[in-house]
Amino acid sequence: MKEEFIDSLIKAEKSKIILVVIDGVGGLALPGGKGTELQIANTHNLDALATESSCGLLEPIGAGITPGSGPAHLALFGYDPIKNNMGRGILSALGTGFNLTEKDVAARVNFATVDEKGRVLDRRAGRIKTELNKELCEKILKNIKLDPSVEIFLHPVRDYRATLILRGDGLWGDLIDTDPQKIGVVPLEVKVTNPRSKKTARIVSDFIEQAKGILAKEKPANMILLRGFDKYIPFKSIKERYGLKALAIAEYPMYKGMAKLLGMEIAQNISGLDSQIEALKKNYDKYDFFFFHIKKTDSFGEDGDFDAKVKEIEKVDAMIPEIVKLYPDVLVVTSDHSTPALLKYHSWHPVPVMIKSIYARKDSVTKFDEISCANGILGLKPMTDLMPITLACANRLEKYGA
Amino acid sequence: MKEEFIDSLIKAEKSKIILVVIDGVGGLALPGGKGTELQIANTHNLDALATESSCGLLEPIGAGITPGSGPAHLALFGYDPIKNNMGRGILSALGTGFNLTEKDVAARVNFATVDEKGRVLDRRAGRIKTELNKELCEKILKNIKLDPSVEIFLHPVRDYRATLILRGDGLWGDLIDTDPQKIGVVPLEVKVTNPRSKKTARIVSDFIEQAKGILAKEKPANMILLRGFDKYIPFKSIKERYGLKALAIAEYPMYKGMAKLLGMEIAQNISGLDSQIEALKKNYDKYDFFFFHIKKTDSFGEDGDFDAKVKEIEKVDAMIPEIVKLYPDVLVVTSDHSTPALLKYHSWHPVPVMIKSIYARKDSVTKFDEISCANGILGLKPMTDLMPITLACANRLEKYGA
Repeated sequence: MKEEFIDSLIKAEKSKIILVVIDGVGGLALPGGKGTELQIANTHNLDALATESSCGLLEPIGAGITPGSGPAHLALFGYDPIKNNMGRGILSALGTGFNLTEKDVAARVNFATVDEKGRVLDRRAGRIKTELNKELCEKILKNIKLDPSVEIFLHPVRDYRATLILRGDGLWGDLIDTDPQKIGVVPLEVKVTNPRSKKTARIVSDFIEQAKGILAKEKPANMILLRGFDKYIPFKSIKERYGLKALAIAEYPMYKGMAKLLGMEIAQNISGLDSQIEALKKNYDKYDFFFFHIKKTDSFGEDGDFDAKVKEIEKVDAMIPEIVKLYPDVLVVTSDHSTPALLKYHSWHPVPVMIKSIYARKDSVTKFDEISCANGILGLKPMTDLMPITLACANRLEKYGA
Repeated sequence: MKEEFIDSLIKAEKSKIILVVIDGVGGLALPGGKGTELQIANTHNLDALATESSCGLLEPIGAGITPGSGPAHLALFGYDPIKNNMGRGILSALGTGFNLTEKDVAARVNFATVDEKGRVLDRRAGRIKTELNKELCEKILKNIKLDPSVEIFLHPVRDYRATLILRGDGLWGDLIDTDPQKIGVVPLEVKVTNPRSKKTARIVSDFIEQAKGILAKEKPANMILLRGFDKYIPFKSIKERYGLKALAIAEYPMYKGMAKLLGMEIAQNISGLDSQIEALKKNYDKYDFFFFHIKKTDSFGEDGDFDAKVKEIEKVDAMIPEIVKLYPDVLVVTSDHSTPALLKYHSWHPVPVMIKSIYARKDSVTKFDEISCANGILGLKPMTDLMPITLACANRLEKYGA
């Protein structure tokens, strides 16, 4: 359904919603194995919750489409992930806590190593330490001289990764990546995919050329590679759309950036599941909506470590009663996308979802996994349908028509 | 699917379709209860029919969206409920049997009580009797003098409710309600939401001002409140779209109005289930399509009376064999929306559906309720999909493509 249609039905209410996102939890059985990570894990708390909930499956973008974290989270929060797609540069900048404006174009930066002919030897410059990254960013900013109508920001992120932001009138983000994504070749030239971005291309070319000169004598980080260019276009916030005062309880910059993009406040000093639970309890009276994001399940999936992912799921399971006993009006447990250890990568597979509320019909599902939830009363739904159902269960949607 | 696409495939056939709509039958378990109204009710006839049918769930408008009766019925009959939305004023006018034209704008009227400062004391004027309502409508019509290019109709509906129809060139219905929906405040001023409705706004303001004067000395009904403005835009009829000669067997004005809007004929002198069955039998040879509407399940849901709703479901169940033994080519039993007694209100929850036809695959479902039907062969479908499937089972749709 259209975003505007949902938004037109919003009404004020005092109910509380907790959305638990177990990142990448959806999986696949290993060949000859007995089930997916969720099926193998011992999850009696999640299963008990499933027994009390409406269950189903959510498809993040569409059949067969593997989502990045950005689009998947947009879908979770009820934003059309295709209409509202944004470059990784924007997410990266938001993740560093940078306050983007409507004049900004952002890109991700890798410090890299090139040989004397400019060919990439290492796309990550031997994974240099964050400290060196900071020094190099400062050195570039100090020595570079670009078009004075454009302001430049270069922020270290972690290890070899940084974020570039250009601020000025008439900038657009329709540029291809300069990162060739392989070694032995020279970086790609800056190219526009839309003529409106010519000014930006000129400035970025100049930036790269000068940065190359400034880094020439550095070892191993003597070059930069850019990717994920995009212009920042502000989103309507969760508050504007749904009237929800929202808190994000997330550990990783990317998800905090995502939450900030949608106008959520960000819980501080999060490090590990225990601190997340603590933040949830401490802030429970102050907000209507809690985005509780758990990262490690995805990380172990990307590592291809089936057993570690299973163990992490069990850790999450052990924590579930702490959330349940806050008795939110609506408790949702789901994921942004699948990350099967078998694939070591995000995948297109739908993710299980359960909604606990006195207004959510209990169905016959008694286990929280990809196969059991297929028999749930919610059926297989587009992920963007989750937010309207959640809002309905929280009594925050008016009737449509008479 | 688009309406035009379905319509382009219609072929002539002599088959008969009965659509039984058990209004608001979908429900929710009470806290600590053992199931929904349908799960608790003893419904061996409905269950026997489910065993012989294709079963599933229908979502009236979309995930999380609670429909009014108008949009829900449009969806049942295969009309896009968002594209074709119409104001309650139109439905109310149709319900009184009024013949609307393309020059008409209609609104619902409440007789109300206001204090000396014009503040609303009672939005329903102490629920005045229909007889007084009639007198007041006549008094207003007799004394009012508006722009002579516009014709006015003011029809009593029931108790304190009436319908206003303005007929003239250049009238549109983009006006906000004057009913403030609360007491202690003055009615809202007439305002347009689209400039094309300025002429209508001028006339409505004049109408309200004069009506206020005419009612000034009445007790308790000394004011009118207006809501649900809309312009009448004729629908393509069921006959035009599907080639079906249709009869509505409904007791309540709203549903007769709805049926009339779609060009159905209306069975007369309906009062109670027995008279509905009688009308069905008597007219069975004369029509192709029967819209059999049962109201009381919804009414008990809105009253919050779980037990009365259960009993009403059992009464409906007892009547099912009378319908089954007419052996229609397609028998559909479903609902327009859920009205859980727990909520005392319409809700967004999908409704169960079953389709009995020699061309409808039997599935494993053996009970007609919201949870059992979730496992049916029809899955969870948009409500607008019901009509194409029904037409197909009635052998009334051509093959698409060669």
